[in-house]
Amino acid sequence: MVDDVVVSELRAGLPDGAVVNEPDLVASYARDMAMFAPSEQPRCVAFARSTADVRHVMRVAARHRVPVVPRGAGSGLAGAANGVAGGITLVLTRMDAIVEIDPANRLAVVEPGVVNLDLRKALEPHGLFYPPDPSSYDWCTLGGNLSTNAGGLCCVKYGVTTDFVLGLEVVLASGEVLRTGRRTVKGVAGYDLSRLFVGAEGTLGVITQATLALRPLPAAPVTLVATFGSTAAAGRAVQDVALAGVVPSLMELMDSTCIRAVDDWKQLGLDRDAQALLLCQSDSGGSHAVAEIERVAELCRKAGATEVHTTDDVEEGQLLLGARRLALPALERYGATLIDDVAVPRSAIADLLDGTDRISAECGVRIGVVGHAGDGNMHPTVVFDVTDEDEKARAYDAFGRILELGLALGGTVTGEHGIGTLKVDWLAREIGPVGLRVHAAIKDALDPLGILNPGKVFRAPPRVG
Amino acid sequence: MVDDVVVSELRAGLPDGAVVNEPDLVASYARDMAMFAPSEQPRCVAFARSTADVRHVMRVAARHRVPVVPRGAGSGLAGAANGVAGGITLVLTRMDAIVEIDPANRLAVVEPGVVNLDLRKALEPHGLFYPPDPSSYDWCTLGGNLSTNAGGLCCVKYGVTTDFVLGLEVVLASGEVLRTGRRTVKGVAGYDLSRLFVGAEGTLGVITQATLALRPLPAAPVTLVATFGSTAAAGRAVQDVALAGVVPSLMELMDSTCIRAVDDWKQLGLDRDAQALLLCQSDSGGSHAVAEIERVAELCRKAGATEVHTTDDVEEGQLLLGARRLALPALERYGATLIDDVAVPRSAIADLLDGTDRISAECGVRIGVVGHAGDGNMHPTVVFDVTDEDEKARAYDAFGRILELGLALGGTVTGEHGIGTLKVDWLAREIGPVGLRVHAAIKDALDPLGILNPGKVFRAPPRVG
Repeated sequence: MVDDVVVSELRAGLPDGAVVNEPDLVASYARDMAMFAPSEQPRCVAFARSTADVRHVMRVAARHRVPVVPRGAGSGLAGAANGVAGGITLVLTRMDAIVEIDPANRLAVVEPGVVNLDLRKALEPHGLFYPPDPSSYDWCTLGGNLSTNAGGLCCVKYGVTTDFVLGLEVVLASGEVLRTGRRTVKGVAGYDLSRLFVGAEGTLGVITQATLALRPLPAAPVTLVATFGSTAAAGRAVQDVALAGVVPSLMELMDSTCIRAVDDWKQLGLDRDAQALLLCQSDSGGSHAVAEIERVAELCRKAGATEVHTTDDVEEGQLLLGARRLALPALERYGATLIDDVAVPRSAIADLLDGTDRISAECGVRIGVVGHAGDGNMHPTVVFDVTDEDEKARAYDAFGRILELGLALGGTVTGEHGIGTLKVDWLAREIGPVGLRVHAAIKDALDPLGILNPGKVFRAPPRVG
Repeated sequence: MVDDVVVSELRAGLPDGAVVNEPDLVASYARDMAMFAPSEQPRCVAFARSTADVRHVMRVAARHRVPVVPRGAGSGLAGAANGVAGGITLVLTRMDAIVEIDPANRLAVVEPGVVNLDLRKALEPHGLFYPPDPSSYDWCTLGGNLSTNAGGLCCVKYGVTTDFVLGLEVVLASGEVLRTGRRTVKGVAGYDLSRLFVGAEGTLGVITQATLALRPLPAAPVTLVATFGSTAAAGRAVQDVALAGVVPSLMELMDSTCIRAVDDWKQLGLDRDAQALLLCQSDSGGSHAVAEIERVAELCRKAGATEVHTTDDVEEGQLLLGARRLALPALERYGATLIDDVAVPRSAIADLLDGTDRISAECGVRIGVVGHAGDGNMHPTVVFDVTDEDEKARAYDAFGRILELGLALGGTVTGEHGIGTLKVDWLAREIGPVGLRVHAAIKDALDPLGILNPGKVFRAPPRVG
């Protein structure tokens, strides 16, 4: 393997073994988990162990105008970490220190390579809790969570990643180090730069440290499961819970396709005639939680639930939640999956379910819907045979039709997975030409050479004037 | 009064009477409530009634490269709405429609001129609640709240303005209309532009509409008041409440100067020997709230409180909160006030109180401290005789020393009031040269002519290269 000048210069400033350019190894870092998301073969992979390492990579990249793609564990679902031809894929998983836990000020300082679950485990003995819990929480890294503004099951009560960011250390395209935000709960000194980098999918800078706000560890949850004979009834229940002013700590929904897929696999005795299953928890503690779940039960019955079951037994609650977590792997037993991520107004959930059923019939592909009903963020998942080119095309068509449906219902094309390379054209549709021009202007201001994760999130529109 | 071409062009596109250039009238719109914040005499004042009006103003301003200062009610405390010589002060108070309240999706769409309290009143019949509650909530407007990312008493539990922004309509410097965000709870399509405009103090665009997230109306609060013989004991109580995982809906603190000032004025029978008074509420409802406040009472006693009183009587709670709200007017009886706004880590509250006492002695000015102890955001308020130039200078010196102290304690120079013209030099100190350059680059990207509220928040640093 002959090193090119970029690889040589990278190696000159990084520890031994930190730069890999063996094509097969490089290829293994060229994609995240997203099907259909375009990716290219990078020139090399660089592993950073410190902010200084990241600065070195950015300086070499700037000197040679070579793209840099920051990357964590690779659990992404939109291709944001996919390789760019000739670029450097910068892997941050080795920057995995939990730098500080400060219980009095309820904050933690972390490096980007810390696995979400590892932070949760480290916080528990302090009675503290970092809420964002994407489904991949046992292997995704916080850097990726920050860069995609990850959500999860907790969002209906606690919010998403950006709601827990107090401050960041970011290496800019120039190699300079920017510190944003603060360690205090409140602060309005200058522009909110932290939240500009959160969700920017690595196109504006490389996050090398984050100061995260924490919450007190909540009480063990009380759980409800309810089944419905129609999507409309389930949708009404979700809406009525919101109208009643109840804020559950979790409110998940599975459609009939998912219910049957899980039951086919695990024989859990789920109601196979149900059109929707709702799972709801309260972590408010003691009698308060019981009362909240009783109220939800009452509203589910009023909305026409066929069966409602509640429990304050934690293990039983975990079992019920387990069935929900099985939905995606259960669908994967039938073929490859293309996971959509639309978020619609809470009041439009039934319309989204019904519309997805229509699209499934029209395109001739199985689509199971599972998702975060409490905040209207649903994951219609298209199942297809990856060896059947015609079915693959129909699956991709269905995927697009669902995005179209989400937009038509007043929603967004991505509730929590991001744009990456997968939905670049859809972003343009959602935000329109003025929005695109503002994106391009900000990108240009922070990365004038266009070397940070180019081609992700949006394509720069032609300049005017 | 001879109209200049700018005024003529403004008038040509706006309703009769919407442009005022009579100097005395113009002068009355040249300042907000901040003492010491530089201000200049604008060329004219324009009153907008619609987004189209705002676009017209921005287009005329861009054509003639004339500064535009957006302004709401003028309740600001940092001079962000202060006039710029030769500029147009654009008043948005007449855009005061509550466009929509959507209970199922817990959101409201508002124009910038809506008074904070008017929104709260309109939401109540729907069982809904918009938490941010700056002290001026009965006359400040939501546009100003958004532009300064206003806080208030609720923040310790509910967060600040930016936490409630789903989407914005913004008129850019070019006169184009940008729509940011969405109507859904979650969404990660593209950069978080909403939160870039929130807190930007009108330097990046003019907010003409906002989609705000709402919460269910909380239960009537249970209240605690506790007095302490030392600031250290009060500080410990605040910290122990946080460590115990209790999240009160309000946690306010008054120092001995404020306690005596209020008692001198209203003879409420407050403990005049107390060094600090802590006021705490829980709005969690029923027995849950009672239990939370009992836990806080226990922690206050353990920390050495001299007296602790709790009540679930709503009127009594309001009376107690009333004493806290009297702190500032009570101090104003002794002279002019210069209100500081430092936020420090919760664990540093006692240090801030003690340091402020030292500064008071060193500078020979009375300083009362009142503030939001639960989130470490305190308002040391310097009292001085405005006709005494020497005392005025000492007051301004004390003001600066407090900011320095806040920074030294790991805090920020502004927790919720903003930078405006008052703290431009302090922002530079807090965020450093890289932070300043990023601010300038973003400003330049969105307002290349530099016409939007120039001189506010930061001074552009010299360009490099």
